[in-house]
Formats: sequence, C-alpha cells, structure tokens
Amino acid sequence: MNFMQSLRAAWRERDTLLCVGLDPDTARLPPSLAGSPRAIFEFCRDIVDATADLVCAFKPQIAYFTACRAEDQLEALIGHIHARHPGVPVILDAKRGDIGSTANRYAEEAFARYQADAVTVNPYMGRDSVEPYLAWEGKGVILLCRTSNPGGSDFQNLDLADGEKLYARVARLASGAWNANGNCALVVGATFPDELAHVRALVGDMPLLVPGIGAQGGDIAASVSAGQTGDGFGLMLNSSRAILYASEGEGGDFAAAARRAALDTRAAINACRAS
Amino acid sequence: MNFMQSLRAAWRERDTLLCVGLDPDTARLPPSLAGSPRAIFEFCRDIVDATADLVCAFKPQIAYFTACRAEDQLEALIGHIHARHPGVPVILDAKRGDIGSTANRYAEEAFARYQADAVTVNPYMGRDSVEPYLAWEGKGVILLCRTSNPGGSDFQNLDLADGEKLYARVARLASGAWNANGNCALVVGATFPDELAHVRALVGDMPLLVPGIGAQGGDIAASVSAGQTGDGFGLMLNSSRAILYASEGEGGDFAAAARRAALDTRAAINACRAS
Repeated sequence: MNFMQSLRAAWRERDTLLCVGLDPDTARLPPSLAGSPRAIFEFCRDIVDATADLVCAFKPQIAYFTACRAEDQLEALIGHIHARHPGVPVILDAKRGDIGSTANRYAEEAFARYQADAVTVNPYMGRDSVEPYLAWEGKGVILLCRTSNPGGSDFQNLDLADGEKLYARVARLASGAWNANGNCALVVGATFPDELAHVRALVGDMPLLVPGIGAQGGDIAASVSAGQTGDGFGLMLNSSRAILYASEGEGGDFAAAARRAALDTRAAINACRAS
Repeated sequence: MNFMQSLRAAWRERDTLLCVGLDPDTARLPPSLAGSPRAIFEFCRDIVDATADLVCAFKPQIAYFTACRAEDQLEALIGHIHARHPGVPVILDAKRGDIGSTANRYAEEAFARYQADAVTVNPYMGRDSVEPYLAWEGKGVILLCRTSNPGGSDFQNLDLADGEKLYARVARLASGAWNANGNCALVVGATFPDELAHVRALVGDMPLLVPGIGAQGGDIAASVSAGQTGDGFGLMLNSSRAILYASEGEGGDFAAAARRAALDTRAAINACRAS
C-alpha cells in the first residue's frame, strides 16, 4: 500500500481529515477489559472498528505498547487494521532519529516488522539520519517540524542567523532536497496556527500531521483555516485521548462513546473546511 | 545504582574512558553462533564478558534488538551485565523524544522494563519532552548535542540569530536549567573536535558520550585533548563495530578478538590523557 495514495483516497472517500491516535494507557482502560491478557489490543481494536469509517489514518504510539512488553499486541493491532479496514493507512508514531546504520534498523522495525504505512521521524540528526526511511518509496516519512507541546518552542522556534526559524528550515528541506521520492510529510502542532500557516505556505500541498486538537487544546477552526490546502484537504488532524477515553466519567460502552466523539470531531472539522 | 556515581567510579577503578557499543547486526554475527535462537544475546554476552574490565559503560542500541523481535534478549543482556559486572553502567541508546505523557512511557521502558542506568534522548521537542527522564533522579539522561554523522551539521551547527550555534544552546540548557538533579550528560561526536572543545568549555565537568571513534573514523587524540576534564576523565568514548566485529576477515574467537581491540583502543585513549 502506498501511503500518500491511500491517504489522499481516504480523505476523499471518507470525507474526513480526522486521524485517531492509539495511545492505550493501561491505567485508563475501561473496567470491562480488566484482567484480559490482551486488553491493550482489544481496547484499540474496538476503538478502530468503531471509528474506521470516520478517519483518514490511525496513529498508534509505540511507547504505550513497548513500555509494557506489548509488542505482539501492536503487531496484531496493525494486522487487524490492514485486514479489516483496507485503505486506512497506519502511521507508527515512533519519532525515531539515529545515524544511518541504526536508522536502517528502525525503518525495518516500522515498515517490515510492524507493517506501518508511515512513521514519524525526528530531524535533529539531519539528512543521512532520515534517508533510510525515505528510501522505502511507498512509505510515508513524517518529520517533526513544529510540535504542539510547550517545549516545542525551546529550539524549533529559534531564529536562525539568516532570519529563518529552525522549524521553517526543516520544512524547507523536507519539501525540497529530501523529498525526491515524494514521500515526506510534516508534524505541525494545532497549538500554533500562525506557524501552521507559515509551513503550509512553504510546502505546497504536502500532507501535515497536526496533533494537539482535543486534550491538548488546539483550536480546530484555526488549524483547518491555517493548514488546509485549496481543495480542503492536506491535513491529518490527530485526536487521541479525547476519543479513546470519551466514556470516562460517564461509563457505558467505550467504543460507542469513542464513535460519538469521533463523529463530533469530524463534523467540527468539516464545518470549517473549504467546500 | 546511581548512573553518575557508577560512571565516575568505573572511570577511576578501571582506568578507562572506553564505552563499548552493543549494536548486534544479525548479518555479521560469527559463524559459530549460526542457528542459535538466542544468537544476539549470546554474541553480546560474550563481548561483554570479554571486555567488562576495560570499559566505563556498555551501550546497547535498542533498534538492533527491536527490528528483529529480540526484546527478550535485550532484557537478558542488561540483566546479565548487572548480575555479572556490577558497577558497569548500562546506557540504553534509544534517542527518544516525545511529549510528556509519551515520554513517561519511554522513560518507563528504558529504566523500569530494561533496567538501564541511562538513556539517550533527542532534545528537539524541548524541555517538557526531557523532564520525564530527568525526574528519575539516579538515572542518566544523555541528550543529543552535536552528533558524529554527516547530517549532524544540517541543523545542530546552524548559527542562531544571537550568534550561538544550535548545539551550544542545547549544551547550555542541559548544563543549566535542565540539570537540577545533576543527571544530564551530552552526546558530542568525535568527528568534530573543535565543537567538542566548545561544549566542554560550556558544561564544566559534565560527562560527554563521544561516538565516532573506530568505524566512523573520529580521531582519538583530538577527541581526548578536546573533551577530557582537567583530571583526565569526563568522557565515554564509544566504539561499537570496530570492537564487535574485530574478528571479521581473520576468523577465530570473536570475543578474544574483541578483547584485543578493546585493549588497543583503551591504550590508545590512555596514551592521550592528562596524567
């Protein structure tokens, strides 16, 4: 499956820019799954099945699996998405970054072992640390550019001597010299709409993964307005906790609550899009 | 075990600045291990046992284990080092970097699951992405500053508007505001001795992990001269491939060849140190 083609098809066919992040916090799993040895897989599988027609991608966060020896459940989850929901791309959120020989191994981990369609990568170590991912032609390489967390400003927002911001330099390289295979995308947080607009202006119609809506408080209308392409696409707006844990406090069926939250979020996004 | 105390003790008691990197490439394992289901563990264990009295730390690189589903062998390896070679700190080379809630999981993975004494962390996402590691008081947090690969210059070496280099800004934060628990260290490549000297001048006697000697071609004399502290310590000079695969081409006992390579490298380092 070619990541860019799948993503563009998913946007249009499902009429959605919503990406659901799968960050299964073992301390927050619903009581109905208590005691199951495969609770992480079962939780995520049910969320996936309840929301797959509403999303343009799923984004499992690898640390939530590896911290508790649940690699096999991550493999099973991605296998389930591919088997049951073909055409929905899977982004492995791993934020890897290492020298070429090691990056080869991380690329193998993401694309061969876990069968992800795209992976997030940290650009701090520069071009040769990113090339091993870029070499997998059909796979997406989503580089951190301007992240949604408070510390994202510590370095990414610094002014360089030539007047460019560091995150803009990343955007320029990712959309230029590094993008020979057309498989680059960028992470730009919803919490900084001005910078999202700046990145959009720099990178043409390159897809942008935008975390920070939902629990992190990013503004949907401002993000869509700043980041969409002229045809009303171009974005993967990620929500994790606000969807996964929608049933917290109210009880009831967690998957149904997740579906309602996903429907609401998709509608809120679509209300702001160019028609 | 407190990482900083162990490291300082290991430097002095073993009279060595050598760190052996454990990057077990399955395509390069010695023929004697062919067919063993635990070949990765056995290879690294024999390297560890042959070199433990010559090193100040071991540094397993997690991607070489996770790309081939060998998490259990990494756990066994670190368990073996702690049991058989107490006092030799283990640095998990993982170069993680993510928002706080996810960074908590990565810290758990490194320190609780794998029982590492220190972990490498990518600073691109800023302070709140690093704090979850720093909060583990006895553990070491080794931040990427100026890496040894060619692309290390793409961003790390950029001039900021105030005249500072980006890597120097990282060094200043890591040795200042971020170091309240005294558990920060930095990665600075052997391939850039002038910048190593600059970092040393900025960070006092903070330990520096220096990859790039051996297979990557960094100069030992220049690195020691630029990076050592006044008392001839302060550095973990890492060699991985030149030691692990010392028997390639010549055949024979791979562990004995690794020991000879480690002895030679330690001697070459010690010949350059302040007495």
